[in-house]
Amino acid sequence: MTKRILSGVQPSGKIHIGNYFGAIKQHIEMQDGNECFYMIANLHSLTTVRDKEKLNQLTLDLALDYLAFGLDPKKCTFFMQSEVPQHAECTWILSTICSMGLLERAHAWKDAQEKGKKETTVGLFTYPVLMASDILLYEPDLVPVGKDQKQHIEITRDVAQKFNSTYCETFKLPEPHIPEEVAVVPGTDGQKMSKSYGNTINVFAEEPEIKKAIMGIQTASTPLEEPMETEGCNVLALYKLMATKEEVEALKEKYRTGGFGYGNAKKTLLEKFHEYFGEFREKRIELEKNMDYVYKVLEEGNEKARAQANSVMDRVKAHTGLKIR
Amino acid sequence: MTKRILSGVQPSGKIHIGNYFGAIKQHIEMQDGNECFYMIANLHSLTTVRDKEKLNQLTLDLALDYLAFGLDPKKCTFFMQSEVPQHAECTWILSTICSMGLLERAHAWKDAQEKGKKETTVGLFTYPVLMASDILLYEPDLVPVGKDQKQHIEITRDVAQKFNSTYCETFKLPEPHIPEEVAVVPGTDGQKMSKSYGNTINVFAEEPEIKKAIMGIQTASTPLEEPMETEGCNVLALYKLMATKEEVEALKEKYRTGGFGYGNAKKTLLEKFHEYFGEFREKRIELEKNMDYVYKVLEEGNEKARAQANSVMDRVKAHTGLKIR
Repeated sequence: MTKRILSGVQPSGKIHIGNYFGAIKQHIEMQDGNECFYMIANLHSLTTVRDKEKLNQLTLDLALDYLAFGLDPKKCTFFMQSEVPQHAECTWILSTICSMGLLERAHAWKDAQEKGKKETTVGLFTYPVLMASDILLYEPDLVPVGKDQKQHIEITRDVAQKFNSTYCETFKLPEPHIPEEVAVVPGTDGQKMSKSYGNTINVFAEEPEIKKAIMGIQTASTPLEEPMETEGCNVLALYKLMATKEEVEALKEKYRTGGFGYGNAKKTLLEKFHEYFGEFREKRIELEKNMDYVYKVLEEGNEKARAQANSVMDRVKAHTGLKIR
Repeated sequence: MTKRILSGVQPSGKIHIGNYFGAIKQHIEMQDGNECFYMIANLHSLTTVRDKEKLNQLTLDLALDYLAFGLDPKKCTFFMQSEVPQHAECTWILSTICSMGLLERAHAWKDAQEKGKKETTVGLFTYPVLMASDILLYEPDLVPVGKDQKQHIEITRDVAQKFNSTYCETFKLPEPHIPEEVAVVPGTDGQKMSKSYGNTINVFAEEPEIKKAIMGIQTASTPLEEPMETEGCNVLALYKLMATKEEVEALKEKYRTGGFGYGNAKKTLLEKFHEYFGEFREKRIELEKNMDYVYKVLEEGNEKARAQANSVMDRVKAHTGLKIR
């Protein structure tokens, strides 16, 4: 059955294969057979990015990345949060019924407090209310989230219920959708791949950077002539994400036979990387030459998102008495 | 010299003569020779009013009151806060640079904390940021405020300065305008006239209610034949607000002569009340019969306000990087 899905993505820099296999791939797959709203969460970015050029670049990069990976604007609504004023309007209205306690208990806020962050801004404190608006305005059936984001959906449901009981039935309560089998993608050092660990393989990097990252993956130091361990090998774990079962079996066979070596294993992975991501990489270069198309996609998405958000805000304004006729 | 003036008025119920002489009269006078923006602050109302019908009524009452008192939509911009989405948009953006400390030091918040208010909402905490947006979007030269509201302007200036120094010169810093000679209007019991003391004379009440309120004003109990004290008499103090100097002198003379009595003094005040407010009262009845005109005035005002607010928000979005081209 067709589900309506909302997902917000915060522009955060160069996409690595951990981002792709951890979330983007699912986003692209879900656009078939569902009604998806994908939001570039640039209003949230303001809590961390305070540089005009940087935020611009991050936003355009994210748009280019998703379109390159196959996001189809005919199938889903791809839009910029800042171009839909209803997000901020709904945030104020929800903040008048959201208790301080609910936000004080938010994990991210408690973390910030404990770490004694030098500058805690109001936005860092209130962003769960913006996130509630992001969700509620699109009346989704499901909101795909990681386990660490489950609380955001709980806060959203709490605030929506409070509003519905204070005024009248207005918001649809969303369900979290925690994908069961999200691939764990190891970084080049074997830890989870993450920009903050500096262990990423960036999908759209220049060829020499890709090669350097892949050839630098940490492995065991088994001598060339001996069989290599297939369990716990980072090269093999990454290969598995991109190759067919048969290809994985064939590579494992080479590991077990010995006389193959990690250099060759990495070369095999590098080839597979280009086979898997080559089309996306070419598409992105093409898109960069055709920015007018990218702007147009976003403008059309913004328009569709505004229409949906407006239909909910009309109700909100009517039910609170903000609308006088 | 023409000044641009912004003032927000929270819809709060029946207008009494304390409201009129304390603020509305000045608002109406300022529209000549200045460029005034008068905002019905209905988004702020949501922090206290949670009843659709009530907020609707309060909003329409305020619009009717101001138009009856002579607000001229050709001379100033009269609009509803909820119809200008830029207020909420600007609020989110400012909240990402506003420190928690600044709001924690706000008088109203500290009061709420000290009184141990049962339910402190996020809106009660963050409303000074909405107020900062209310002001900054209209680039006013002056913001008329009571002494107790001076801190709002200070917070607005702080937040605006923080934004300007974080990004670049964007917001004009407003100056508070504390009118020097605001009339102190005594209530029927001699305390300051205030709805919360139940001592008001409501400008647009039905005749029997007006009469009851005025005839019930507390006075001294000087016997009829004796001269009456002119100092500290509530009847005389109220009469002074509406009568000419000559008329006040004439009434004082009657006080000093004796044989006049408080009953007659009150009747004189009641007559003067109708002489002073009669035209406004008739105008309001007419307006109520012509609500389409009232809606139209607000719609035109909303349109003008949005255009002004948008010009500032365009700058804000460009300077933060929310606008991608």
